[in-house]
Amino acid sequence: MKLAVLNGPNLNLLGTREPEIYGTTTLADIESRLHVVARELGIELAFVQTNHEGALVDAIQGLRGTADGVIINAGAYSHTSLAIRDALSAVAIPYVEVHLSNIFAREPERRHSALASGATAVLCGFGAYGYELALRGIVARLANRG
Amino acid sequence: MKLAVLNGPNLNLLGTREPEIYGTTTLADIESRLHVVARELGIELAFVQTNHEGALVDAIQGLRGTADGVIINAGAYSHTSLAIRDALSAVAIPYVEVHLSNIFAREPERRHSALASGATAVLCGFGAYGYELALRGIVARLANRG
Amino acid sequence: MKLAVLNGPNLNLLGTREPEIYGTTTLADIESRLHVVARELGIELAFVQTNHEGALVDAIQGLRGTADGVIINAGAYSHTSLAIRDALSAVAIPYVEVHLSNIFAREPERRHSALASGATAVLCGFGAYGYELALRGIVARLANRG
Amino acid sequence: MKLAVLNGPNLNLLGTREPEIYGTTTLADIESRLHVVARELGIELAFVQTNHEGALVDAIQGLRGTADGVIINAGAYSHTSLAIRDALSAVAIPYVEVHLSNIFAREPERRHSALASGATAVLCGFGAYGYELALRGIVARLANRG
Amino acid sequence: MKLAVLNGPNLNLLGTREPEIYGTTTLADIESRLHVVARELGIELAFVQTNHEGALVDAIQGLRGTADGVIINAGAYSHTSLAIRDALSAVAIPYVEVHLSNIFAREPERRHSALASGATAVLCGFGAYGYELALRGIVARLANRG
Amino acid sequence: MKLAVLNGPNLNLLGTREPEIYGTTTLADIESRLHVVARELGIELAFVQTNHEGALVDAIQGLRGTADGVIINAGAYSHTSLAIRDALSAVAIPYVEVHLSNIFAREPERRHSALASGATAVLCGFGAYGYELALRGIVARLANRG
Amino acid sequence: MKLAVLNGPNLNLLGTREPEIYGTTTLADIESRLHVVARELGIELAFVQTNHEGALVDAIQGLRGTADGVIINAGAYSHTSLAIRDALSAVAIPYVEVHLSNIFAREPERRHSALASGATAVLCGFGAYGYELALRGIVARLANRG
Amino acid sequence: MKLAVLNGPNLNLLGTREPEIYGTTTLADIESRLHVVARELGIELAFVQTNHEGALVDAIQGLRGTADGVIINAGAYSHTSLAIRDALSAVAIPYVEVHLSNIFAREPERRHSALASGATAVLCGFGAYGYELALRGIVARLANRG
Amino acid sequence: MKLAVLNGPNLNLLGTREPEIYGTTTLADIESRLHVVARELGIELAFVQTNHEGALVDAIQGLRGTADGVIINAGAYSHTSLAIRDALSAVAIPYVEVHLSNIFAREPERRHSALASGATAVLCGFGAYGYELALRGIVARLANRG
Amino acid sequence: MKLAVLNGPNLNLLGTREPEIYGTTTLADIESRLHVVARELGIELAFVQTNHEGALVDAIQGLRGTADGVIINAGAYSHTSLAIRDALSAVAIPYVEVHLSNIFAREPERRHSALASGATAVLCGFGAYGYELALRGIVARLANRG
Amino acid sequence: MKLAVLNGPNLNLLGTREPEIYGTTTLADIESRLHVVARELGIELAFVQTNHEGALVDAIQGLRGTADGVIINAGAYSHTSLAIRDALSAVAIPYVEVHLSNIFAREPERRHSALASGATAVLCGFGAYGYELALRGIVARLANRG
Amino acid sequence: MKLAVLNGPNLNLLGTREPEIYGTTTLADIESRLHVVARELGIELAFVQTNHEGALVDAIQGLRGTADGVIINAGAYSHTSLAIRDALSAVAIPYVEVHLSNIFAREPERRHSALASGATAVLCGFGAYGYELALRGIVARLANRG
Repeated sequence: MKLAVLNGPNLNLLGTREPEIYGTTTLADIESRLHVVARELGIELAFVQTNHEGALVDAIQGLRGTADGVIINAGAYSHTSLAIRDALSAVAIPYVEVHLSNIFAREPERRHSALASGATAVLCGFGAYGYELALRGIVARLANRG
Repeated sequence: MKLAVLNGPNLNLLGTREPEIYGTTTLADIESRLHVVARELGIELAFVQTNHEGALVDAIQGLRGTADGVIINAGAYSHTSLAIRDALSAVAIPYVEVHLSNIFAREPERRHSALASGATAVLCGFGAYGYELALRGIVARLANRG
Repeated sequence: MKLAVLNGPNLNLLGTREPEIYGTTTLADIESRLHVVARELGIELAFVQTNHEGALVDAIQGLRGTADGVIINAGAYSHTSLAIRDALSAVAIPYVEVHLSNIFAREPERRHSALASGATAVLCGFGAYGYELALRGIVARLANRG
Repeated sequence: MKLAVLNGPNLNLLGTREPEIYGTTTLADIESRLHVVARELGIELAFVQTNHEGALVDAIQGLRGTADGVIINAGAYSHTSLAIRDALSAVAIPYVEVHLSNIFAREPERRHSALASGATAVLCGFGAYGYELALRGIVARLANRG
Repeated sequence: MKLAVLNGPNLNLLGTREPEIYGTTTLADIESRLHVVARELGIELAFVQTNHEGALVDAIQGLRGTADGVIINAGAYSHTSLAIRDALSAVAIPYVEVHLSNIFAREPERRHSALASGATAVLCGFGAYGYELALRGIVARLANRG
Repeated sequence: MKLAVLNGPNLNLLGTREPEIYGTTTLADIESRLHVVARELGIELAFVQTNHEGALVDAIQGLRGTADGVIINAGAYSHTSLAIRDALSAVAIPYVEVHLSNIFAREPERRHSALASGATAVLCGFGAYGYELALRGIVARLANRG
Repeated sequence: MKLAVLNGPNLNLLGTREPEIYGTTTLADIESRLHVVARELGIELAFVQTNHEGALVDAIQGLRGTADGVIINAGAYSHTSLAIRDALSAVAIPYVEVHLSNIFAREPERRHSALASGATAVLCGFGAYGYELALRGIVARLANRG
Repeated sequence: MKLAVLNGPNLNLLGTREPEIYGTTTLADIESRLHVVARELGIELAFVQTNHEGALVDAIQGLRGTADGVIINAGAYSHTSLAIRDALSAVAIPYVEVHLSNIFAREPERRHSALASGATAVLCGFGAYGYELALRGIVARLANRG
Repeated sequence: MKLAVLNGPNLNLLGTREPEIYGTTTLADIESRLHVVARELGIELAFVQTNHEGALVDAIQGLRGTADGVIINAGAYSHTSLAIRDALSAVAIPYVEVHLSNIFAREPERRHSALASGATAVLCGFGAYGYELALRGIVARLANRG
Repeated sequence: MKLAVLNGPNLNLLGTREPEIYGTTTLADIESRLHVVARELGIELAFVQTNHEGALVDAIQGLRGTADGVIINAGAYSHTSLAIRDALSAVAIPYVEVHLSNIFAREPERRHSALASGATAVLCGFGAYGYELALRGIVARLANRG
Repeated sequence: MKLAVLNGPNLNLLGTREPEIYGTTTLADIESRLHVVARELGIELAFVQTNHEGALVDAIQGLRGTADGVIINAGAYSHTSLAIRDALSAVAIPYVEVHLSNIFAREPERRHSALASGATAVLCGFGAYGYELALRGIVARLANRG
Repeated sequence: MKLAVLNGPNLNLLGTREPEIYGTTTLADIESRLHVVARELGIELAFVQTNHEGALVDAIQGLRGTADGVIINAGAYSHTSLAIRDALSAVAIPYVEVHLSNIFAREPERRHSALASGATAVLCGFGAYGYELALRGIVARLANRG
């Protein structure tokens, strides 16, 4: 089983950006931890971060036929990007949407996700640990299908 | 560490009600599984289900001073109940909101939760397994505080 | 064939409450008349009234496997209760929604019903006689299915 | 007692048009059945169908002083026609609004009726049988007045 | 003259719940103080608290013919409950709506009251003292009528 | 100078329909009075009434090249008819919109006119006398242009 | 019979301000013309202009018991002033609202009048001549009452 | 293959009405041109224009069983007519919606079409030539089905 | 302790204006009564009424450093005046908002107050007696602070 | 005459992505076919696809002075991109907007195009053939100008 | 070149009112500084402050023919006053709108300005220094015209 | 002190694109002028333009620790880009938002800025000179902090 973890704009600053909202764990820390869990679960993992909406679309398209599931934290693009939503539909790979903070406790424009309606599952507010929960969750979901 | 798992209206029918949306696992199955995980994590667990909004308020009030965290799936009351929201604020216990289905893929009136803005974290779409993820997630969150 | 007639909050005051809107017939009068019609139609009839939303949910759940159809006047809960709507979906019994007054001639918050979209049929403004029409109507509908 | 049954656009196609929504009974079948019931109830019945909004207005105006009640299924004009609403107010004859399908389970633009607020009663979702219920209902309502 | 003071969900926690918003006076303190004022004014006073919407409806119905006025703080149900609003209309007893905090300085969903349009008067932001003002106010209002 | 006075649905009932809103003057009375004023002003006058939206469109088209101005009371079609609005634009004849009642004191759906934005002037609430004011007003306006 | 003509902010600039919208007639011209018409009709006329909302309220209050009708062009205050609306209700004198331009052909914020719902009649788009029409119209309306 | 081209209100004025928006080609010119193209494509063509909504409904109903496709420019009725929409659904003939001008560059009330959601395709802004494109387009679409 | 009571537009007409809404007590009666209560409570009282929004702003500014609390009934300005709201914030004196009628039972535009969110407390529907309650209430609130 | 055909995100997946909505023709097939038509019409054609909004802006800017017309299917960016809209305005080249599916029969967020108001024409629902129609249509439009 | 600087309600309190939002510079400080800059730029400057909307209208009217440009900070009236907007249009003098704080970072009702659409330029958030920038900016703009 | 000036999509066309809105000064002219002012003020200046949202995010991230302030004209991305807003928050550098035209006098979708609420100050409508004002303004603001 192969999974991809996709990260959108400004997540590369994680750990230094507004730590009172996003915590001090860096994206590299998250990647390391996810590789540990992936090995435990016997799966392969790709990890991507980009600030460009088009690059996220490119990355998602590149997963067609090679990934069984996606964990995506599209950052600010989550709230507006139909292009990313379309790419995810087009490749037809199940995905879990993750956010570090509880987006429902934030400003109105961050409470709506353009990606959520197509997701298998959505999870937010667990901080960096949310990625691990998403990973375990999607693996369980995919296993149910097999 | 003591946790409570609260379930709202119609969740007692789980496993028989609209299985194409909610799956075939019963609420008793979920309770059993959570007790297994609770033992693994070394925590105590209370489990409640009721169809009455007022009874959920009573139950939440009864947790004051006795529970360290709450996992709540308030069912249909999630979308409208300020009384449950107030009770959770009043007892000041961190809570994770869980839904079996991905509420963002459903009817508009089910996409808004009156509880979410006060929650530590929110998670939906993982089916029965979401309870276990929520349990692991809140324990991790509470441990970080200690 | 077994049917249940469910009545929500304040309908126990019928005949005394705002008679210029709701008329002077009491709920007991309606129940008596419906039993007459039920005998004529050769069906069994249960009749319930409660002021509690949760009790309506309990009552609906209790009908599973025992009732073939429901006539429901959920009173004020009609306009907001997703929990009752969920219970009706969960037990998967066809139902007709009844209101004594023409709800479309009243205040805006009474013109929307949370139950209507799942109903077989909706009927309002016939006063107490509307229950009898609903009974004849749902029996005809159910007979068509057999 | 004299009643008129008015039918709006496309109801002449009944029985052939989208039968999964509207059933296979034709408008002529409905008219025949209503005449049977009318005889049983000892009342006179006129029956009209037209695709023209203005013709419905003309027809309603023609009822002044000759009809005691109206049963109207204005079809698509129900949702927008203030002119029909005005005509019904102008002739001051009580009317019952009927729809074959449950309009509250359909598209948003079909959930609002411009006629409903002035109606004595509203009824939908009983299929062709709804006309008969409306007839019995309005006769009962008018009898109460006498 | 007999009055009833009705309190909704979570008001039993008063004095301990979010004291920075609601103060440290308990509901028992308020009840004691109101009995002092009631004696001064020569009136009888009943005092109720419940977390259940249906129980508030039951309580209001029970006042018919026995109470001359109601002071109601329906807590979170104030903002959504048409059932309580209906019960108050049905028993036709004048009522004053009270809130401890200034609801207009709070979240949007707490700025609207479903009860206010039927109230004799509305008052908020005076803390526990608001109950006493409401009591004096409704007694003055009722006296004017006599 | 030639003018046309166009009247929409239900205005033929004027004088008998809801006289507390529309008064007791008939449309024939208005036509007679307008002919008197027209003679005084030395102008020709055509007078039309129809309940059909399409017939109003036909009538307006027929005025092209023969009328210098239009006074229109499109009744209920005023609030929704883009077709009449288009016809008036297409023939490019200045028009004054008239209503008998003050439409701004009526129901929300009657406060908006689809015709008003293209009118030379708008006038409502003067009852039958409003037609005469409109006639004098449009003649003055047209004279200013000459 | 005594009438008052009240004019709001910026109407003193009439004839010089944006003449392509408001024409070249000055307010003094309008006043002169109205006095001519008033003499013809045998009525007394007061004429006021002020840029101050409060001064309009003062002026309206001063008419109590001395004026039989009011013609008001409250200019920009028309669209927002509840204080002027209240003053007109308080003195209970019938009034006609006048605007020089067709407000329905202008920006959205100028299409709504806070005064219109309480007016006897409303008239706009006739330019300066609209005042004369309003004068004749209100005199006719008041005469009907006598 | 037989097609019908249906034209709504005011399109008979084409070529003379607001030529800066709609061009100078007449409806007769369009009809002639379409017959040339129809001959080229080997299909039969009916061509209708009416100002009456009800007549459009009648015309559409008359196509049942005789036409394979419809090209419709319902003019102003496009934006509001559920009756025409229903007729098109009822006869179940594929249709292409055409507008001469780019409706998305016009007033807000002209940017929404009540017919579009049921159309096979929609096309606007090509002027008279748009009819020819629609004809070629629907023939291609229908051919794909055969 | 010094307090000021500020009254906005049209309150000078109290007792004569729409007595079915506002009662027959005059503003002078209220002022007299408040002076009696003020003497009882050992406080000083200033009393102001004006129809001018700017004059209310001036008056509020004049209270800086001289008043400990304000009771304000800004009449129609309550619903729209950010300038009065700003003045109250600028002088930083606690204030209670009073209305004679229950504004929540009136027209929509009177149900929102621009002043309420900054007030210590809000009270409406007690008629003239509401001023006295507001006075006692604000004195109690201010005493709690001392 | 030179034209450019611009394609936005995910259109490179055409023929494989959700074929029940978008068909099985690939973008390369469309390009080939358009070159055939271009040769027939004697025009030059450039063809671009990119997933990046900024790259579309770059491409449009690059057309200034070199292209006479644009056919654009901006995919998901159609619904939100003011930057693409600005680029098209900036280069001042006429453009036709194309969509493969009928966007008016899809989800609400896909029914609005940010590009449409500036387009010469808009066309959707003809599948791949729509590109050819757009090409013929824009060439006709441009020829009319010459 | 002559300019006027107009200041609305509560700006006279500048330097003492909510200094955390508005700073400690007084309006007199601003006036002094602007006179220095005006001398540097060789222009004449008038400076006005008033709490009265009508007085602002009077002041603007008084500038006709005497001022070449206006800098206006209308304070709270900025958000609602069509009368001030009209006065500025009527005198046809270019104006720059200034706010001390960044109004877009404040409450929703302060984010909209009724004056902005007619302004030459708008500037906010620079504190007292914003006046100087506005002065330099408008002088540059006016110079460009000469 | 180091500042960066960031320019979004289509600003590279400045001077040629829609000069009636944006003027004839090029972006290079603006850059030159700003370097002159920067030397005068003794500060360093970086100047960037890109059509890519992601590239703007990259550029902002690159300023962390190297720039003391930002002047940003994000062009069309101003109105929608949460990603740019997040990047500006993440690097925590004060910024001034600039627009060449007065965005409040343009189409509705250009009147809202996603960046404004986080800006130190906002300025629009001064044309190219607005950059210089922004530069002087932010330097003054930053100097106040030191």
